[in-house]
Amino acid sequence: MVSLVPSDFGFEKKIPDGDNMERQVCNDCGWIHYENPRIIVGSVVTFEDQFLLCKRAIHPRKGYWTLPAGFMEQQETSEAGAAREAFEEANAKIKIRDLLSLYNVTHISQIHIMYRAELETPDFSAGEESLEVALFKWDDIPWDELAFPTIYWALHQYKSIKGQERFVPFGNAEGEMLKQSYDILKR
Amino acid sequence: MVSLVPSDFGFEKKIPDGDNMERQVCNDCGWIHYENPRIIVGSVVTFEDQFLLCKRAIHPRKGYWTLPAGFMEQQETSEAGAAREAFEEANAKIKIRDLLSLYNVTHISQIHIMYRAELETPDFSAGEESLEVALFKWDDIPWDELAFPTIYWALHQYKSIKGQERFVPFGNAEGEMLKQSYDILKR
Repeated sequence: MVSLVPSDFGFEKKIPDGDNMERQVCNDCGWIHYENPRIIVGSVVTFEDQFLLCKRAIHPRKGYWTLPAGFMEQQETSEAGAAREAFEEANAKIKIRDLLSLYNVTHISQIHIMYRAELETPDFSAGEESLEVALFKWDDIPWDELAFPTIYWALHQYKSIKGQERFVPFGNAEGEMLKQSYDILKR
Repeated sequence: MVSLVPSDFGFEKKIPDGDNMERQVCNDCGWIHYENPRIIVGSVVTFEDQFLLCKRAIHPRKGYWTLPAGFMEQQETSEAGAAREAFEEANAKIKIRDLLSLYNVTHISQIHIMYRAELETPDFSAGEESLEVALFKWDDIPWDELAFPTIYWALHQYKSIKGQERFVPFGNAEGEMLKQSYDILKR
C-alpha cells in the first residue's frame, strides 16, 4: 500500500490567519488539515498466568508479536476502544481492569493508553490484522520477536505490580528497561 | 468566527477502499480526512493553598473560569503540552507533579489528561486566550461561573487526594459529583 501525504493532494504548509503554527492548507479550497497527536488504546490481557499476544499481519513490524492495541475511534471511551481492539485483533472478549500506563511516543505524535485486562475464558482466534494469536507464560514470551519497545515496557511494568490491587500507573520506561527495549527494533 | 465543516469544502462521507468506517472524502482530489479523538492536556495549578484559574476570552464558554488546558500539539509530551498551555493562557511557569485524571468526553471525542502542578512563584498574567487570570482559595472559587463540568471534577478530585504523595488517578466523575457538575452548563 502506498502511503499518501498531504502534498500529494495539493496541500502546502502555511500559517493560517489567527494561528501561530504551520498547518497543511489546501491550495484549491483552503481546507486546513490540522494534525493532532493520535491515541493508541490497548491492554495487557491475561488468562491465569498467561499473556495474550498477537502476531501482526500488517505493517509496520509484520510477523512480530504485539499486545492487542490500536487507534481509538471517535465517540468511544478509551476502555471501550481497548476492548474493541482485543475483539478485532484476537476475537477476545476482555474485561478491562484498570489503567496500567500512559506513554508519550513523541517522534510519531502518539499517546498510548494501556490497561490491565483479563480474559474470562481462553477463547480467541486471529482477527484480520493478526497472523496468529496465542497465550504465553512469562518465560515463553517471544522476547526476541516483539513488535515495539512499548510492548516490552507494558509487559514488564505489568509484572512489576502483579498482585497489586491499586498502583500509580506508569509512564515511559527509563534506564535499563528503556535500553533493553530498544534492542527490539534492531531485530 | 464562523466554524467551517468538511462539507463546506466539498467533502462527502464515504467508506474508503479497505476501510470499514465512513470518512470525509474530498470529491475533488480524494483526500481522506480521518477524524480521531483529540487530546486536551491541562492541570490543576496551585500556589500555596490557592488555585490558578483563567477567565476564557474565547468561545465556547467565553467569560467563564477554566483551568489552564488546551489541545496537545504534535511532537510534544502530554506534560510539556500542559505546561505550554499554562504558559500560553496564564503566562505561568508551572512544575508538573503527577497525573491527576484521565477523562473520556465521548460526545465531542476528546480525552482530557489532567495533571497536578505547582506554581513556584505567584507570577502570572492573562495570555491571549484569557480575559483574566487569578489565584483563588477553595471557598472563593467562582463555582457558579465555571466553564465546563470537567473543571469541577478536576478541582474536587484534586481536593480529595490533597496531601497524598501517591494515588490512583481519577476517571470521569460519577454519582453526586457528576450531577452537581452538570448544573454548570445551565448557567
